[in-house]
Amino acid sequence: MQLNVNLKDCAYPITIQRNALNNIQETIQTNRKIMIITDSGVPQKWIDIVSSQCLDSFIVTIPNGEQSKCFKQYEELLLEAIEHEMTRKDAIIALGGGVVGDLAGFVAATYMRGIDFYNIPTTLLSQVDSSVGGKVAIDAGNYKNIVGAFWQPKAVIIDPNVLSTLPQRHINNGLVEALKTGLIQDKELVELFKQDDLDIDQIIYRSINVKRKVVEQDERESSLRKILNFGHTIGHAIEGAYGLDTYLHGECVAMGMLFFIDNKELKEDVLKIYEKLHLPKVPDYDVDTLMNFIQHDKKSSSSSITIVLVKQAGTYELQEVSYDTIKTYLERGPYEK
Amino acid sequence: MQLNVNLKDCAYPITIQRNALNNIQETIQTNRKIMIITDSGVPQKWIDIVSSQCLDSFIVTIPNGEQSKCFKQYEELLLEAIEHEMTRKDAIIALGGGVVGDLAGFVAATYMRGIDFYNIPTTLLSQVDSSVGGKVAIDAGNYKNIVGAFWQPKAVIIDPNVLSTLPQRHINNGLVEALKTGLIQDKELVELFKQDDLDIDQIIYRSINVKRKVVEQDERESSLRKILNFGHTIGHAIEGAYGLDTYLHGECVAMGMLFFIDNKELKEDVLKIYEKLHLPKVPDYDVDTLMNFIQHDKKSSSSSITIVLVKQAGTYELQEVSYDTIKTYLERGPYEK
Repeated sequence: MQLNVNLKDCAYPITIQRNALNNIQETIQTNRKIMIITDSGVPQKWIDIVSSQCLDSFIVTIPNGEQSKCFKQYEELLLEAIEHEMTRKDAIIALGGGVVGDLAGFVAATYMRGIDFYNIPTTLLSQVDSSVGGKVAIDAGNYKNIVGAFWQPKAVIIDPNVLSTLPQRHINNGLVEALKTGLIQDKELVELFKQDDLDIDQIIYRSINVKRKVVEQDERESSLRKILNFGHTIGHAIEGAYGLDTYLHGECVAMGMLFFIDNKELKEDVLKIYEKLHLPKVPDYDVDTLMNFIQHDKKSSSSSITIVLVKQAGTYELQEVSYDTIKTYLERGPYEK
Repeated sequence: MQLNVNLKDCAYPITIQRNALNNIQETIQTNRKIMIITDSGVPQKWIDIVSSQCLDSFIVTIPNGEQSKCFKQYEELLLEAIEHEMTRKDAIIALGGGVVGDLAGFVAATYMRGIDFYNIPTTLLSQVDSSVGGKVAIDAGNYKNIVGAFWQPKAVIIDPNVLSTLPQRHINNGLVEALKTGLIQDKELVELFKQDDLDIDQIIYRSINVKRKVVEQDERESSLRKILNFGHTIGHAIEGAYGLDTYLHGECVAMGMLFFIDNKELKEDVLKIYEKLHLPKVPDYDVDTLMNFIQHDKKSSSSSITIVLVKQAGTYELQEVSYDTIKTYLERGPYEK
């Protein structure tokens, strides 16, 4: 299966295909110098398959985990590119999860003012979400993604086979972002989650298809693209306050979405799906602690905040509300209504 | 006087006006948080004039000189922006020479994936050259501008009055880039250099007008924009090999241009202008040393290099030549023909 992202200045293909990893030459021009950036959590066999198809590549492995999205690692990768005398015509391949994609993409965006970048996501979370859209970044000063760029990949290669080495909890973590996408834009994608055996390939395809359309309409996140943040306002706060070493990103987003599903039956359906995915329950939380994270997160002097509300699967509503309103959502709790 | 740069995705004004510094509100929306980045060489009075017109600004002063275009300074500036809780809607003003503009521009390009950037160049070199065109960058691993982005300013404000505090040698340094622009694209600009009293305002205006047109046609330096590198191939090599602490950038470019002016009379005219500007003579050089810098500088595995040749004032010729050809130019010397 293939999808195309059509933007004003560029277009690029997304291949969703089992065994695509073994045929990267179909989309990547491999007869040049290629820096393969991967992380310590990616099984060697996937790295070997990719590098064996490149004529002149070198591999840089960063430590697994969010802490790699830092200035130090960013600088080190750029110095590696310099040391290997990469030119404007060479390319970077990201082979890993969201951290690798964000970091490698930012290196590609800024090395010699921008070189070709290819993304081969190896986690379900990055396959259904971060690999598409061109948002690349590192973290700084307690803020996630505060330094970065918009830099679209030349191609994204998604091979569901690589998920065979991913722990089930991480699969479920990725499924949450796909479910999120369904809830705001694609009712049939939500229906896919109700089947006994999940059709991962279809879930990836439909999920990316939604994201693609949203990105095409709003590449630089000035308006529509904000709907993809459904569940993230409170989710990020839970992640910041209680998530460290406890919850995965998708698990926190799952918690965050509950507060903004404004329909009793739909919430029941979603909770059943959560059960099937063995997602953790929302922990006891302190309202003020979360409010603090939410206000800090926005870095906005504005007194209001845009929330995404879902009343029916596949549709969303944007509401501009005060921080006090957010507080009432938190006080009411995730399981009400 | 005002010029407009019209690019595919954006357009911005360049004001060239005495006292423009006292009226920045005409082009800069100052009722938001503004980070003013300047350097230790900029007289306090210019800083005061700018900051007094901003409602909510803070000033960050970096050390004067090329060594500030480094990762460490880049990171520090971003952390300052974070500490001051700057949002997507805030802005950065660069008040200084090319180093400040390049560095501040790169911070603006990447803070929260890009915020508004205004450039107020205070050296003649940056007024006639680097402030226009959107090339922002830092240096790394012995390469100038190896890490950066294309990030266009929202406006450029050029006030020739600020040159009153600039040493004459630095004025002449800037004039070289203007002369370069004339040699490749504007015969009348070259004529301006033959007058007894140089009309700086006109020289700035004509010079930027050429650069504007070139940038409009080739924003990302894929082809035409390379003509602006006239004199830079050998100039950069002299700068790298002999320039440190001895010559200014423009002085090296002046030397570099001589090798590629292919017309006896024109070269004589140019040498007269150099004399008027008290530019240094080309030092004794070692051909292999310079060749080494040239090949290193290009970071290209290609065996050829594009040179810009001027046979008549106001026109250029591009030639794809081998490194051996460059060597013969060096062996022939700058003052022949």
